[in-house]
Amino acid sequence: SVGLRRAEVKSGVRELICCKDEQGRIGLRVRSISKGVFVQFVHKNTPAALAGLRFGDQILQINGENVAGWDTDKTMKYLKKCDPQRIVFAVRDRPFERTITLQKDSSGHVGFVYKNGEVTKIAKESSAARNGLLIDHMLVEVNGQNVIGLKDSEISEIVSVCGRTVTLTIIPNFIYKHIMKSIGGSLVKKDMDHSIPDV
Amino acid sequence: SVGLRRAEVKSGVRELICCKDEQGRIGLRVRSISKGVFVQFVHKNTPAALAGLRFGDQILQINGENVAGWDTDKTMKYLKKCDPQRIVFAVRDRPFERTITLQKDSSGHVGFVYKNGEVTKIAKESSAARNGLLIDHMLVEVNGQNVIGLKDSEISEIVSVCGRTVTLTIIPNFIYKHIMKSIGGSLVKKDMDHSIPDV
Repeated sequence: SVGLRRAEVKSGVRELICCKDEQGRIGLRVRSISKGVFVQFVHKNTPAALAGLRFGDQILQINGENVAGWDTDKTMKYLKKCDPQRIVFAVRDRPFERTITLQKDSSGHVGFVYKNGEVTKIAKESSAARNGLLIDHMLVEVNGQNVIGLKDSEISEIVSVCGRTVTLTIIPNFIYKHIMKSIGGSLVKKDMDHSIPDV
Repeated sequence: SVGLRRAEVKSGVRELICCKDEQGRIGLRVRSISKGVFVQFVHKNTPAALAGLRFGDQILQINGENVAGWDTDKTMKYLKKCDPQRIVFAVRDRPFERTITLQKDSSGHVGFVYKNGEVTKIAKESSAARNGLLIDHMLVEVNGQNVIGLKDSEISEIVSVCGRTVTLTIIPNFIYKHIMKSIGGSLVKKDMDHSIPDV
Protein backbone atom coordinates (compact mmCIF):
# COMPACT_ATOMS: atom_id res chain seq x y z
CA SER A 1 0.00 0.00 0.00
CA VAL A 2 1.10 3.54 -0.70
CA GLY A 3 0.61 4.50 2.98
CA LEU A 4 3.02 1.79 4.03
CA ARG A 5 5.61 2.98 1.54
CA ARG A 6 5.20 6.57 2.72
CA ALA A 7 5.70 5.48 6.31
CA GLU A 8 8.56 3.01 5.85
CA VAL A 9 11.59 3.68 8.03
CA LYS A 10 14.48 3.04 5.67
CA SER A 11 17.84 1.66 6.73
CA GLY A 12 21.07 3.25 5.60
CA VAL A 13 21.99 6.90 5.25
CA ARG A 14 20.41 9.26 2.72
CA GLU A 15 21.74 12.53 1.39
CA LEU A 16 19.55 15.53 0.81
CA ILE A 17 20.17 19.00 -0.43
CA CYS A 18 18.49 22.05 0.99
CA CYS A 19 18.67 25.82 0.43
CA LYS A 20 17.46 28.78 2.48
CA ASP A 21 14.42 30.88 1.64
CA GLU A 22 14.52 34.64 0.95
CA GLN A 23 14.53 35.31 4.70
CA GLY A 24 17.52 33.02 5.08
CA ARG A 25 15.52 30.32 6.85
CA ILE A 26 15.65 26.56 6.36
CA GLY A 27 12.56 25.87 8.48
CA LEU A 28 14.29 23.38 10.73
CA ARG A 29 14.83 22.99 14.46
CA VAL A 30 17.08 20.31 15.86
CA ARG A 31 17.77 18.88 19.28
CA SER A 32 20.86 17.10 20.55
CA ILE A 33 20.25 13.79 22.34
CA SER A 34 22.81 11.20 23.45
CA LYS A 35 25.50 12.79 21.24
CA GLY A 36 23.28 12.73 18.18
CA VAL A 37 21.44 15.59 16.43
CA PHE A 38 17.74 15.02 15.74
CA VAL A 39 15.08 16.86 13.77
CA GLN A 40 12.70 18.35 16.34
CA PHE A 41 10.56 20.50 14.09
CA VAL A 42 10.01 20.99 10.36
CA HIS A 43 8.19 24.21 9.46
CA LYS A 44 5.57 23.65 6.77
CA ASN A 45 6.24 25.04 3.28
CA THR A 46 9.91 25.71 3.94
CA PRO A 47 13.06 24.34 2.27
CA ALA A 48 13.41 21.72 5.05
CA ALA A 49 9.89 20.43 4.39
CA LEU A 50 10.38 20.42 0.61
CA ALA A 51 13.70 18.58 0.97
CA GLY A 52 11.91 15.82 2.86
CA LEU A 53 13.36 16.22 6.35
CA ARG A 54 11.08 14.65 8.92
CA PHE A 55 10.56 14.80 12.64
CA GLY A 56 12.92 12.28 14.30
CA ASP A 57 15.48 12.11 11.48
CA GLN A 58 19.04 11.94 12.79
CA ILE A 59 21.37 14.41 11.06
CA LEU A 60 24.79 12.79 10.69
CA GLN A 61 26.62 15.33 8.58
CA ILE A 62 26.11 18.87 7.36
CA ASN A 63 28.24 19.82 4.34
CA GLY A 64 30.48 16.85 5.06
CA GLU A 65 31.09 17.74 8.74
CA ASN A 66 30.20 15.03 11.26
CA VAL A 67 27.79 16.54 13.79
CA ALA A 68 28.13 13.72 16.36
CA GLY A 69 28.61 15.34 19.74
CA TRP A 70 27.40 18.78 18.63
CA ASP A 71 24.84 20.38 20.90
CA THR A 72 21.63 22.02 19.72
CA ASP A 73 23.13 25.53 19.78
CA LYS A 74 26.27 24.67 17.88
CA THR A 75 24.23 22.95 15.19
CA MET A 76 21.77 25.84 14.78
CA LYS A 77 24.63 28.37 14.62
CA TYR A 78 26.46 26.28 12.04
CA LEU A 79 23.33 26.12 9.91
CA LYS A 80 22.96 29.91 10.11
CA LYS A 81 26.43 30.35 8.65
CA CYS A 82 25.93 27.86 5.82
CA ASP A 83 25.80 28.97 2.20
CA PRO A 84 22.10 29.75 1.52
CA GLN A 85 22.26 28.15 -1.94
CA ARG A 86 23.25 24.65 -0.99
CA ILE A 87 23.37 22.74 2.28
CA VAL A 88 24.04 19.02 2.08
CA PHE A 89 22.68 16.81 4.85
CA ALA A 90 23.49 13.17 5.51
CA VAL A 91 20.53 11.77 7.39
CA ARG A 92 19.57 8.53 9.09
CA ASP A 93 15.87 7.86 8.75
CA ARG A 94 13.98 8.28 12.07
CA PRO A 95 16.02 5.83 14.19
CA PHE A 96 13.75 5.97 17.26
CA GLU A 97 10.57 5.29 15.31
CA ARG A 98 8.99 2.17 13.95
CA THR A 99 5.86 1.37 11.99
CA ILE A 100 2.96 -0.94 12.69
CA THR A 101 0.39 -1.77 10.03
CA LEU A 102 -3.18 -2.37 11.18
CA GLN A 103 -6.35 -3.48 9.40
CA LYS A 104 -9.71 -1.96 10.18
CA ASP A 105 -12.43 -4.38 11.30
CA SER A 106 -15.92 -4.39 9.84
CA SER A 107 -16.89 -1.39 11.99
CA GLY A 108 -13.80 0.51 10.87
CA HIS A 109 -11.89 0.14 14.13
CA VAL A 110 -8.22 -0.75 14.47
CA GLY A 111 -8.46 -1.12 18.25
CA PHE A 112 -6.68 1.51 20.27
CA VAL A 113 -7.41 4.67 22.24
CA TYR A 114 -5.19 7.74 22.24
CA LYS A 115 -5.15 10.99 24.15
CA ASN A 116 -3.16 14.02 23.06
CA GLY A 117 -1.54 11.78 20.47
CA GLU A 118 -0.40 9.19 23.02
CA VAL A 119 -1.57 5.57 22.79
CA THR A 120 -3.30 4.84 26.10
CA LYS A 121 -5.31 1.67 25.57
CA ILE A 122 -5.27 -1.44 23.37
CA ALA A 123 -8.57 -3.20 22.70
CA LYS A 124 -8.65 -6.96 23.19
CA GLU A 125 -8.89 -9.07 20.03
CA SER A 126 -8.28 -6.05 17.83
CA SER A 127 -5.82 -5.48 15.01
CA ALA A 128 -3.78 -3.33 17.41
CA ALA A 129 -3.57 -6.24 19.89
CA ARG A 130 -2.71 -8.80 17.22
CA ASN A 131 0.04 -6.61 15.83
CA GLY A 132 1.57 -5.59 19.14
CA LEU A 133 0.83 -1.88 19.33
CA LEU A 134 2.05 -0.59 22.71
CA ILE A 135 0.87 2.08 25.11
CA ASP A 136 3.41 4.64 26.35
CA HIS A 137 4.05 5.51 22.70
CA MET A 138 3.21 8.64 20.73
CA LEU A 139 1.63 8.64 17.29
CA VAL A 140 4.09 10.39 14.99
CA GLU A 141 2.64 9.60 11.58
CA VAL A 142 -0.44 8.02 10.02
CA ASN A 143 0.36 6.47 6.64
CA GLY A 144 3.55 8.51 6.65
CA GLN A 145 1.79 11.83 7.29
CA ASN A 146 3.07 13.64 10.36
CA VAL A 147 0.36 14.18 12.99
CA ILE A 148 2.39 15.81 15.77
CA GLY A 149 0.55 18.82 17.16
CA LEU A 150 -2.76 17.86 15.57
CA LYS A 151 -5.86 17.52 17.75
CA ASP A 152 -7.01 13.98 18.48
CA SER A 153 -10.13 14.70 16.43
CA GLU A 154 -7.96 15.67 13.46
CA ILE A 155 -5.92 12.47 13.81
CA SER A 156 -9.18 10.47 13.96
CA GLU A 157 -10.31 12.12 10.77
CA ILE A 158 -7.07 11.14 9.00
CA VAL A 159 -7.40 7.55 10.23
CA SER A 160 -11.06 7.33 9.25
CA VAL A 161 -10.55 8.42 5.63
CA CYS A 162 -7.44 6.39 4.91
CA GLY A 163 -8.86 3.07 3.76
CA ARG A 164 -8.79 -0.36 5.40
CA THR A 165 -5.03 -0.48 5.99
CA VAL A 166 -3.48 2.01 8.39
CA THR A 167 0.24 2.24 9.00
CA LEU A 168 1.15 4.02 12.23
CA THR A 169 4.59 5.41 12.99
CA ILE A 170 5.22 5.41 16.74
CA ILE A 171 7.97 6.50 19.11
CA PRO A 172 8.43 5.73 22.82
CA ASN A 173 6.96 8.52 24.91
CA PHE A 174 10.13 8.90 26.87
CA ILE A 175 12.17 9.70 23.76
CA TYR A 176 9.44 11.88 22.29
CA LYS A 177 9.42 14.09 25.38
CA HIS A 178 13.18 14.31 25.21
CA ILE A 179 13.14 15.49 21.60
CA MET A 180 10.26 17.92 22.15
CA LYS A 181 11.69 19.61 25.21
CA SER A 182 12.10 23.37 24.78
CA ILE A 183 9.76 23.88 21.85
CA GLY A 184 6.53 25.80 22.14
CA GLY A 185 3.31 23.83 21.73
CA SER A 186 1.66 26.61 19.75
CA LEU A 187 4.45 26.67 17.16
CA VAL A 188 4.07 22.92 16.68
CA LYS A 189 0.29 23.13 16.46
CA LYS A 190 0.33 26.01 14.00
CA ASP A 191 3.33 25.39 11.78
CA MET A 192 4.52 21.76 11.89
CA ASP A 193 4.77 20.23 8.43
CA HIS A 194 1.80 17.86 8.07
CA SER A 195 2.06 17.35 4.35
CA ILE A 196 1.77 13.90 2.80
CA PRO A 197 5.28 12.76 1.88
CA ASP A 198 6.26 11.77 -1.65
CA VAL A 199 6.98 8.09 -2.14
CA SER B 1 27.75 -9.45 4.82
CA VAL B 2 26.61 -12.45 6.80
CA GLY B 3 26.89 -10.49 10.10
CA LEU B 4 24.48 -7.90 8.77
CA ARG B 5 22.02 -10.58 7.75
CA ARG B 6 22.29 -12.26 11.15
CA ALA B 7 21.63 -8.92 12.86
CA GLU B 8 18.85 -7.60 10.63
CA VAL B 9 15.68 -6.58 12.46
CA LYS B 10 12.93 -7.87 10.19
CA SER B 11 9.56 -6.23 9.77
CA GLY B 12 6.36 -8.21 9.94
CA VAL B 13 5.36 -11.04 12.24
CA ARG B 14 7.02 -14.46 12.25
CA GLU B 15 5.69 -17.75 13.57
CA LEU B 16 7.87 -20.22 15.41
CA ILE B 17 7.23 -23.55 17.00
CA CYS B 18 8.76 -24.65 20.26
CA CYS B 19 8.53 -27.67 22.54
CA LYS B 20 9.55 -28.28 26.15
CA ASP B 21 12.59 -30.28 27.20
CA GLU B 22 12.44 -33.42 29.41
CA GLN B 23 12.22 -31.22 32.51
CA GLY B 24 9.25 -29.41 30.99
CA ARG B 25 11.20 -26.21 30.40
CA ILE B 26 11.18 -23.92 27.39
CA GLY B 27 14.17 -21.86 28.54
CA LEU B 28 12.39 -18.54 28.24
CA ARG B 29 11.64 -15.62 30.54
CA VAL B 30 9.40 -12.79 29.50
CA ARG B 31 8.54 -9.37 30.83
CA SER B 32 5.45 -7.30 30.29
CA ILE B 33 6.03 -3.69 29.22
CA SER B 34 3.48 -1.14 28.03
CA LYS B 35 0.87 -3.89 27.47
CA GLY B 36 3.26 -5.97 25.38
CA VAL B 37 5.12 -9.17 26.30
CA PHE B 38 8.86 -9.18 25.60
CA VAL B 39 11.60 -11.82 25.69
CA GLN B 40 13.79 -10.99 28.67
CA PHE B 41 16.00 -14.06 28.73
CA VAL B 42 16.74 -17.04 26.50
CA HIS B 43 18.53 -19.89 28.27
CA LYS B 44 21.31 -21.37 26.13
CA ASN B 45 20.78 -24.82 24.62
CA THR B 46 17.08 -24.91 25.37
CA PRO B 47 14.06 -25.21 23.06
CA ALA B 48 13.62 -21.40 23.13
CA ALA B 49 17.19 -20.89 21.94
CA LEU B 50 16.90 -23.57 19.26
CA ALA B 51 13.61 -22.12 18.03
CA GLY B 52 15.35 -18.80 17.47
CA LEU B 53 13.71 -16.62 20.12
CA ARG B 54 15.89 -13.61 20.92
CA PHE B 55 16.20 -11.06 23.65
CA GLY B 56 13.81 -8.19 22.91
CA ASP B 57 11.41 -10.12 20.67
CA GLN B 58 7.80 -9.16 21.28
CA ILE B 59 5.51 -12.16 21.70
CA LEU B 60 2.16 -11.37 20.10
CA GLN B 61 0.38 -14.70 20.35
CA ILE B 62 0.88 -18.05 22.05
CA ASN B 63 -1.10 -20.89 20.49
CA GLY B 64 -3.31 -18.35 18.77
CA GLU B 65 -4.14 -16.38 21.94
CA ASN B 66 -3.33 -12.66 21.83
CA VAL B 67 -1.10 -11.85 24.79
CA ALA B 68 -1.52 -8.05 24.56
CA GLY B 69 -2.22 -6.79 28.06
CA TRP B 70 -1.03 -9.98 29.80
CA ASP B 71 1.40 -9.41 32.65
CA THR B 72 4.62 -11.35 33.18
CA ASP B 73 3.04 -13.79 35.64
CA LYS B 74 0.01 -14.61 33.54
CA THR B 75 2.24 -15.28 30.53
CA MET B 76 4.65 -17.54 32.44
CA LYS B 77 1.75 -19.48 33.98
CA TYR B 78 0.10 -19.90 30.59
CA LEU B 79 3.35 -21.24 29.14
CA LYS B 80 3.63 -23.75 32.01
CA LYS B 81 0.22 -25.19 31.13
CA CYS B 82 0.93 -25.45 27.38
CA ASP B 83 1.24 -28.80 25.65
CA PRO B 84 4.95 -29.76 25.92
CA GLN B 85 5.02 -31.08 22.35
CA ARG B 86 4.04 -27.97 20.46
CA ILE B 87 3.80 -24.32 21.39
CA VAL B 88 3.22 -21.86 18.56
CA PHE B 89 4.48 -18.31 19.00
CA ALA B 90 3.71 -15.30 16.83
CA VAL B 91 6.60 -12.92 17.30
CA ARG B 92 7.54 -9.41 16.23
CA ASP B 93 11.28 -9.11 15.72
CA ARG B 94 12.98 -7.00 18.45
CA PRO B 95 10.89 -3.81 18.07
CA PHE B 96 12.96 -1.67 20.45
CA GLU B 97 16.26 -2.51 18.76
CA ARG B 98 17.99 -1.25 15.66
CA THR B 99 21.23 -2.03 13.89
CA ILE B 100 24.14 0.18 12.88
CA THR B 101 26.87 -1.08 10.58
CA LEU B 102 30.40 0.23 11.16
CA GLN B 103 33.67 -0.17 9.27
CA LYS B 104 36.96 -0.61 11.09
CA ASP B 105 39.66 1.95 10.31
CA SER B 106 43.25 0.98 9.48
CA SER B 107 44.01 0.42 13.17
CA GLY B 108 40.94 -1.78 13.57
CA HIS B 109 38.84 0.77 15.47
CA VAL B 110 35.20 1.55 14.89
CA GLY B 111 35.24 4.51 17.26
CA PHE B 112 33.30 4.09 20.47
CA VAL B 113 33.85 3.28 24.13
CA TYR B 114 31.54 1.09 26.20
CA LYS B 115 31.33 0.15 29.84
CA ASN B 116 29.34 -2.81 31.13
CA GLY B 117 27.93 -3.12 27.64
CA GLU B 118 26.71 0.50 27.52
CA VAL B 119 27.98 2.89 24.85
CA THR B 120 29.53 5.81 26.74
CA LYS B 121 31.62 7.71 24.21
CA ILE B 122 31.78 8.31 20.45
CA ALA B 123 35.18 9.13 18.91
CA LYS B 124 35.30 12.14 16.59
CA GLU B 125 35.76 11.37 12.87
CA SER B 126 35.20 7.66 13.46
CA SER B 127 32.89 5.20 11.76
CA ALA B 128 30.67 5.35 14.86
CA ALA B 129 30.40 9.17 14.52
CA ARG B 130 29.73 9.03 10.76
CA ASN B 131 27.01 6.44 11.21
CA GLY B 132 25.28 8.05 14.16
CA LEU B 133 25.93 5.60 16.98
CA LEU B 134 24.49 7.07 20.20
CA ILE B 135 25.48 6.94 23.84
CA ASP B 136 22.81 5.96 26.41
CA HIS B 137 22.37 2.75 24.44
CA MET B 138 23.24 -0.85 25.33
CA LEU B 139 25.00 -3.25 22.99
CA VAL B 140 22.63 -6.17 22.52
CA GLU B 141 24.29 -8.00 19.64
CA VAL B 142 27.48 -7.95 17.59
CA ASN B 143 26.89 -9.29 14.08
CA GLY B 144 23.67 -10.79 15.37
CA GLN B 145 25.31 -12.62 18.27
CA ASN B 146 23.82 -11.73 21.64
CA VAL B 147 26.38 -10.16 24.02
CA ILE B 148 24.17 -9.37 27.01
CA GLY B 149 25.86 -10.45 30.23
CA LEU B 150 29.28 -10.83 28.61
CA LYS B 151 32.24 -8.98 30.07
CA ASP B 152 33.45 -5.95 28.12
CA SER B 153 36.66 -7.84 27.36
CA GLU B 154 34.63 -10.68 25.85
CA ILE B 155 32.66 -8.24 23.72
CA SER B 156 35.95 -6.66 22.57
CA GLU B 157 37.21 -10.06 21.56
CA ILE B 158 34.09 -10.71 19.46
CA VAL B 159 34.42 -7.30 17.77
CA SER B 160 38.14 -7.77 17.13
CA VAL B 161 37.81 -11.12 15.35
CA CYS B 162 34.77 -10.27 13.24
CA GLY B 163 36.33 -8.73 10.13
CA ARG B 164 36.24 -5.17 8.84
CA THR B 165 32.48 -4.75 8.96
CA VAL B 166 30.74 -4.82 12.33
CA THR B 167 26.98 -4.62 12.73
CA LEU B 168 25.85 -3.59 16.20
CA THR B 169 22.35 -4.11 17.54
CA ILE B 170 21.52 -1.46 20.11
CA ILE B 171 18.63 -0.59 22.42
CA PRO B 172 17.99 2.58 24.43
CA ASN B 173 19.27 2.13 27.96
CA PHE B 174 16.00 3.20 29.43
CA ILE B 175 14.11 0.38 27.72
CA TYR B 176 16.86 -2.15 28.39
CA LYS B 177 16.68 -1.49 32.13
CA HIS B 178 12.91 -1.84 31.98
CA ILE B 179 13.12 -5.24 30.29
CA MET B 180 15.92 -6.49 32.56
CA LYS B 181 14.27 -5.52 35.82
CA SER B 182 13.82 -8.46 38.18
CA ILE B 183 16.30 -10.87 36.61
CA GLY B 184 19.47 -11.95 38.37
CA GLY B 185 22.75 -10.78 36.86
CA SER B 186 24.45 -14.10 37.54
CA LEU B 187 21.80 -16.06 35.61
CA VAL B 188 22.28 -13.74 32.63
CA LYS B 189 26.07 -13.97 32.82
CA LYS B 190 26.08 -17.75 33.14
CA ASP B 191 23.23 -18.95 30.99
CA MET B 192 22.14 -16.35 28.42
CA ASP B 193 22.09 -17.74 24.89
CA HIS B 194 25.13 -16.28 23.12
CA SER B 195 25.08 -18.58 20.12
CA ILE B 196 25.53 -17.25 16.61
CA PRO B 197 22.10 -17.18 14.95
CA ASP B 198 21.34 -19.02 11.74
CA VAL B 199 20.72 -16.80 8.75
